[in-house]
Amino acid sequence: MHIDILTLFPEMFDGVLNHSILKRAQERDAFTYNYVNFRDYTTNKHNKVDDYPYGGGAGLVLTPQPIFDAVEAIQEKVDKKPRVVLMCPQGEPYNQQKAEELAKEDHLVFICGHYEGYDERIRKELVTDEISIGDYVLTGGELGSMVVIDSVVRLLPGVLGNEQSAPEDSFSSGLLEHPHYTRPADFRGHKVPDVLLSGNHAKIDEWRHQQSLKRTYQRRPDLLQERELSDREKTWIEEWKNS
Amino acid sequence: MHIDILTLFPEMFDGVLNHSILKRAQERDAFTYNYVNFRDYTTNKHNKVDDYPYGGGAGLVLTPQPIFDAVEAIQEKVDKKPRVVLMCPQGEPYNQQKAEELAKEDHLVFICGHYEGYDERIRKELVTDEISIGDYVLTGGELGSMVVIDSVVRLLPGVLGNEQSAPEDSFSSGLLEHPHYTRPADFRGHKVPDVLLSGNHAKIDEWRHQQSLKRTYQRRPDLLQERELSDREKTWIEEWKNS
Repeated sequence: MHIDILTLFPEMFDGVLNHSILKRAQERDAFTYNYVNFRDYTTNKHNKVDDYPYGGGAGLVLTPQPIFDAVEAIQEKVDKKPRVVLMCPQGEPYNQQKAEELAKEDHLVFICGHYEGYDERIRKELVTDEISIGDYVLTGGELGSMVVIDSVVRLLPGVLGNEQSAPEDSFSSGLLEHPHYTRPADFRGHKVPDVLLSGNHAKIDEWRHQQSLKRTYQRRPDLLQERELSDREKTWIEEWKNS
Repeated sequence: MHIDILTLFPEMFDGVLNHSILKRAQERDAFTYNYVNFRDYTTNKHNKVDDYPYGGGAGLVLTPQPIFDAVEAIQEKVDKKPRVVLMCPQGEPYNQQKAEELAKEDHLVFICGHYEGYDERIRKELVTDEISIGDYVLTGGELGSMVVIDSVVRLLPGVLGNEQSAPEDSFSSGLLEHPHYTRPADFRGHKVPDVLLSGNHAKIDEWRHQQSLKRTYQRRPDLLQERELSDREKTWIEEWKNS
């Protein structure tokens, strides 16, 4: 996969893209990236990339010209038009399903605004996907695109080793993960549940399943609405409701 | 505000913490930060910070000892116990309200695991807030804590100038932001809506309000469920339903 990142702040990305799993993904040729500072494409004589909004109001708005020209310069070099992702609070809420969808692409382009708004024509004519990573306000689109890139690249074939694959559980089963324990069995008087030390794998599996469901029931009941519950799961939930 | 970041990958953070608004926030003495590599606190002779899970299964689990000792070393130096935030997919979904709540604190501690699970005793005995930035799987807690730090620090007094404050609109009104347009009025045949060029501010306000509501209705109807609609808004929505 190749990723082009349109940003005025490329140096914000280096630490994230060049360490840990994303670094390894590059070493294994799973992904490459390139920064495009779209200020380089402005035809404005003062090198401006934003301007005041029509109709008045606070804040600045990114003008269409430099962003169109930068994206088109990328498109001219490739046969197949890449998906063009805009990071913004008005976008589709990002989730694991969307990460899996994007991981199937060969080429992605990310547009990161930085506290400015985007001229609507960028959304309408250039962008294929508007994505929001959550209902909170960030300084710019840079962190959002790092989040999307991290979650997508780790899904590419050959990137994750077995030791990193466990957290996947959380969303693939539709339930939050069960509690984990490791040594020591007694830490300052706080003990590991007996069942995990029992060696009885059927019981351990049942305990983990129950704990996963309980945590989801207590913390994220919204996730259960999309899930078909088994009879056993329904019985457990009835018990928790009554206690 | 002071922020302590417990991480095995401090170099991932530099680009984000030292540019743009977060850099300016430091220059204006609004916030300071410190990395704590909790591997420095392990009493394990091989410097290990994780171990196999009790009960078996894939993946590794962060052991309690180095993280407890690292957090307690921070707590010993201060009078008031800071809030201790754990980034994890099982946490409370992060939103703007939580950002505003955290922005009132003087001192925050972030614990970032890195693809491992956390020993449950860390959650139960040490952590005050478990936060998830969204329903997707990331390589580690580092990006999540950068997201929280960015969204919190930009709310601190004196950090944002007027030119950066506009995107706030999106979540404070409970609606997504209306479209923005800037020059040119005609870009490759795509024109700015006439109303924005009219100079009639009452009409512009009404158009923006309507567009905000329409975008929210089309993209995020879930946000409207928590909102009391005015009569005028109800009429608009009826019209969109019928068209």
